[in-house]
Amino acid sequence: MNANHLEKSKILIRYLEQHGRVPKDMATLIINETRVIEFKKRKHIVSPLDMHPNMYFILSGAARGFTREDGEDLTTWITIEGQIVGLTLFSKQFSTAKPQFIETIEPCQVILITNLLVKKLLAEYPEMSMICRKLLWQHYHDAEERNYLIRLNSAVKRLNRMNDTHPQFYHRIPLKYLASYLGMRIETLSRLRSQMLNSSTT
Amino acid sequence: MNANHLEKSKILIRYLEQHGRVPKDMATLIINETRVIEFKKRKHIVSPLDMHPNMYFILSGAARGFTREDGEDLTTWITIEGQIVGLTLFSKQFSTAKPQFIETIEPCQVILITNLLVKKLLAEYPEMSMICRKLLWQHYHDAEERNYLIRLNSAVKRLNRMNDTHPQFYHRIPLKYLASYLGMRIETLSRLRSQMLNSSTT
Repeated sequence: MNANHLEKSKILIRYLEQHGRVPKDMATLIINETRVIEFKKRKHIVSPLDMHPNMYFILSGAARGFTREDGEDLTTWITIEGQIVGLTLFSKQFSTAKPQFIETIEPCQVILITNLLVKKLLAEYPEMSMICRKLLWQHYHDAEERNYLIRLNSAVKRLNRMNDTHPQFYHRIPLKYLASYLGMRIETLSRLRSQMLNSSTT
Repeated sequence: MNANHLEKSKILIRYLEQHGRVPKDMATLIINETRVIEFKKRKHIVSPLDMHPNMYFILSGAARGFTREDGEDLTTWITIEGQIVGLTLFSKQFSTAKPQFIETIEPCQVILITNLLVKKLLAEYPEMSMICRKLLWQHYHDAEERNYLIRLNSAVKRLNRMNDTHPQFYHRIPLKYLASYLGMRIETLSRLRSQMLNSSTT
């Protein structure tokens, strides 16, 4: 345990505290049993082969969730630092579920919260159950937002909606992932961006 | 309290028990403080004006969730008996969230679980927190499935995926809601159905 790790675990604990109380010994357990790890760009954080996927709190960087369809990636979500990924994989997979990958888009520094630690926290602290419930609720809300966005019937509406809800993505996330996430061709997204740039400079 | 209500509350309790233990006094509280109500076809169960939306366990019938976009309905989910609706509205709305409606597609018999009762159950029974967590996880999974389905790049793929995961919908849900849910025009869905019918009879 070094000062750097302690400081970083505290970021995670403050994040959890936004969703419920974290008793002192629960915080100590988290500090003792998590560690900070790094992923380079384009590395799989979670693959469908993980039978007991871990949870990861992103300290810095960006990641995406995707499935494969006819040999092509289908980006279903994008997230950046300050969020937990893998939370919703923490349970047995439904038999009809499409295999899910989580991949880094940028180099990522994350806090690894192992499957075993999550189980321990859930078993020992009712507070953890409440925090997970609130986090799941938020993830559900985010999933419904993506569901709404992708159903909008024009490319420009979808791009505008993303800019309203996730303005950080526009300049930061590479075109190919954004286009897949927004359900449009790269050329279409590229054209819309040029149009927006032109209209903002005239 | 009549025998009919008792019998129906037990269906709800058995449903909750699939996700966690229901202590005897928690079951008694549910039996005493829920009631069975009926909605005709095309009635709003939940509208965005509900500041404290209730939860409803559907005993019989079908319902859909939708938002409005440029004066048109956008059906984002469909559900049938044996499921809870409104669960994910149980918390403050996010500021960017699109207003959500829940409407009956068929006449529905439901068990009303008031917002107040949910709060009481969550405050008194850690088991309720766990059950809600598991239900939310399942709802999240369902939302991601819809997210995947709607991103499939051809109408026939989307229809096939729906038939794989929710075979009940195909013959039961009216075309206009199915078409909106599947992100296709009514004419396209109608044509695909005729083609499927022809190929299964030849």
